[in-house]
Amino acid sequence: MNIEQVQQQLRVFAQERDWEQFHTPKNLASALAVETSELLEVFQWLTDSQSIAIKGDVARMRKVEEEIADVTLYLLRLADVLSLDLQKAVDRKLRINAEKYPVEKARGNAKKYNEL
Amino acid sequence: MNIEQVQQQLRVFAQERDWEQFHTPKNLASALAVETSELLEVFQWLTDSQSIAIKGDVARMRKVEEEIADVTLYLLRLADVLSLDLQKAVDRKLRINAEKYPVEKARGNAKKYNEL
Amino acid sequence: MNIEQVQQQLRVFAQERDWEQFHTPKNLASALAVETSELLEVFQWLTDSQSIAIKGDVARMRKVEEEIADVTLYLLRLADVLSLDLQKAVDRKLRINAEKYPVEKARGNAKKYNEL
Amino acid sequence: MNIEQVQQQLRVFAQERDWEQFHTPKNLASALAVETSELLEVFQWLTDSQSIAIKGDVARMRKVEEEIADVTLYLLRLADVLSLDLQKAVDRKLRINAEKYPVEKARGNAKKYNEL
Repeated sequence: MNIEQVQQQLRVFAQERDWEQFHTPKNLASALAVETSELLEVFQWLTDSQSIAIKGDVARMRKVEEEIADVTLYLLRLADVLSLDLQKAVDRKLRINAEKYPVEKARGNAKKYNEL
Repeated sequence: MNIEQVQQQLRVFAQERDWEQFHTPKNLASALAVETSELLEVFQWLTDSQSIAIKGDVARMRKVEEEIADVTLYLLRLADVLSLDLQKAVDRKLRINAEKYPVEKARGNAKKYNEL
Repeated sequence: MNIEQVQQQLRVFAQERDWEQFHTPKNLASALAVETSELLEVFQWLTDSQSIAIKGDVARMRKVEEEIADVTLYLLRLADVLSLDLQKAVDRKLRINAEKYPVEKARGNAKKYNEL
Repeated sequence: MNIEQVQQQLRVFAQERDWEQFHTPKNLASALAVETSELLEVFQWLTDSQSIAIKGDVARMRKVEEEIADVTLYLLRLADVLSLDLQKAVDRKLRINAEKYPVEKARGNAKKYNEL
């Protein structure tokens, strides 16, 4: 995905509609939270095995695809409004995670998942 | 950002730690919602103008960057687990939005933002 | 629980600290969403059976209790700021739900849970 | 509000529909997060002053009332499923907050709101 290109499309989209006034970082962070909850809603009553089997459910996957797209769009818009370099942010976090959960320690006890 | 490459890194990361068992679509959707709320938390007591001025606040921006990275990583991981093509999902949603909010209609009344 | 009494305590608490300026309905709704996500975080990697067994896990239950208290406090504060009668709201919703999900229809197919 | 009575109604409601199987603590925590986001959605594009003025907007307040009722119902149901005493949880948290944010310290600098 060409992130800069999608961000450029979103920028033009907001400008044309005079919606930039609504796109404060705070509002976009709210919208992002709301959209992820709409995504979570699809899964909330499913068992784990039903949630894995969702890939074969065309209607639900269409809904999931739409909500994931909404999450992606608000995420890219927020990063753009904050002039934040997503690639750099992700690279830094991957390094932090690798240090925080070394394979030999994390494998044995899945510490991350067992501690509060 | 090379999305496939980041997804590949996340896949290896989970495999090495035997964490794939935790990465059901349902759990990843939960984790995504939790991370977006951690992002929202940074903004929750700020006024709109403070939220715009956050770009100049190094400490807060570092926190924002970390949370946005977490959101991005769970989003990419979830899309990967669901074998969902993010680019296609985003392109489709951009077309839907363009039809739903035509410039001439949306500009005048910001319908999206004024209706319930 | 005496809801009015707790709301009164929260009102005084905010007044004494000059925190009323932060307690707009919008900010309180954000804080409520953030706190529910902190509650969700406790459960996010658990299997369903582990989530049921949590009642026997003193440390996790202490964390759950704290997060549930936070959710309750923000909920009561928001209702107070909006002068909203919680009892009336709940009674109305219980009636709506009873009409929306009649026993004979809901029992057979758990419609609410199977449809999108 | 008589919390025990509402919890009793919710218990019967779930039993009659054979919905107890869906009401694991994990699923209820998800549902609670989803409902608070639906509440947040009402406020997400409003300015702070618009969010305060919402009390005079009958249509929006009706929506807010419904979402707040949903949040309350899932909160009470979750507490019931976990056999958690809400009053005790709330009392404990009020004491913790009073110690954490002493009036003289909190008033001057609104520390809670200014620090990360």
